Amino acid sequence: MKLTTYTDYALRTLMYLAANRERLVTIQDIADVHHIAKNHLTKVVHQLGVLGVVATVRGRNGGLKLGKEPVQINIGAVVRSTEPDFFMAECFDPSKNECILTSCCGLKNVLRSATTAYLGVLDGVTLENLVRKNVARTGKAEVKPLRFYAAVKTKSSHRT
Amino acid sequence: MKLTTYTDYALRTLMYLAANRERLVTIQDIADVHHIAKNHLTKVVHQLGVLGVVATVRGRNGGLKLGKEPVQINIGAVVRSTEPDFFMAECFDPSKNECILTSCCGLKNVLRSATTAYLGVLDGVTLENLVRKNVARTGKAEVKPLRFYAAVKTKSSHRT
Repeated sequence: MKLTTYTDYALRTLMYLAANRERLVTIQDIADVHHIAKNHLTKVVHQLGVLGVVATVRGRNGGLKLGKEPVQINIGAVVRSTEPDFFMAECFDPSKNECILTSCCGLKNVLRSATTAYLGVLDGVTLENLVRKNVARTGKAEVKPLRFYAAVKTKSSHRT
Repeated sequence: MKLTTYTDYALRTLMYLAANRERLVTIQDIADVHHIAKNHLTKVVHQLGVLGVVATVRGRNGGLKLGKEPVQINIGAVVRSTEPDFFMAECFDPSKNECILTSCCGLKNVLRSATTAYLGVLDGVTLENLVRKNVARTGKAEVKPLRFYAAVKTKSSHRT
């Protein structure tokens, strides 16, 4: 069981933007740091923009920034948006379903409940939680936002 | 997010065996009813045998049956066994992980907690629950085990 790479990239994009709030970021920055193809990231960023969690500043010195405060960005909502579906078995997809058990079997409800529990955990988490170092482990609220990328030099971070 | 087809087939195999306890079943029966390639099912059945939930009776009139009572077969345990991994993002797989956030980001713990919640739901379900029609909806314990396949005629069901 896994999330799509697309969702993985979306979450990394948001974490990068949250950790670099003092400047505008380019898609190339994120692609370079994470060794991700730029055209993949372009699609991801577009969707995050539609979702309102990433904003684009146009112009020569433009770039990306978060569209909301990290504490307002719910990880459950992001994952629901970036995953194409939660079809845990064939019976979840009406266009492909040929399983003869569909009308009467208990599996679909069980898998739906499990998926709800999974997303329920993510619904309780914000981007702020993800970029605070070890907050879950130490239980200390005063820990500073993590500077993930402090040692990573990118073209635009030199520019700003 | 989805389970593998392999797990889907494993669960269908167990449901078929639970619904046909009065006779031995062949892999061909299950393949025919569910339109699944027999060689895929052979691997699935082998693994379910190793797990002790499917037993093989050898000989000319041999076949498959459940290795335990349906109430003893935990769906969480089956899914943990049949899914190759629960690598929800790149950072879960040490052999492929190149993410520079690994040492400090909060995402991995969050996704691990969500996966634990997912499997926790399945840990509370047995094969018996899956083959009792609408038990969750009606809350009635006296409903009879489902005869999923009553209308489906297979070679071996004619034979017995």
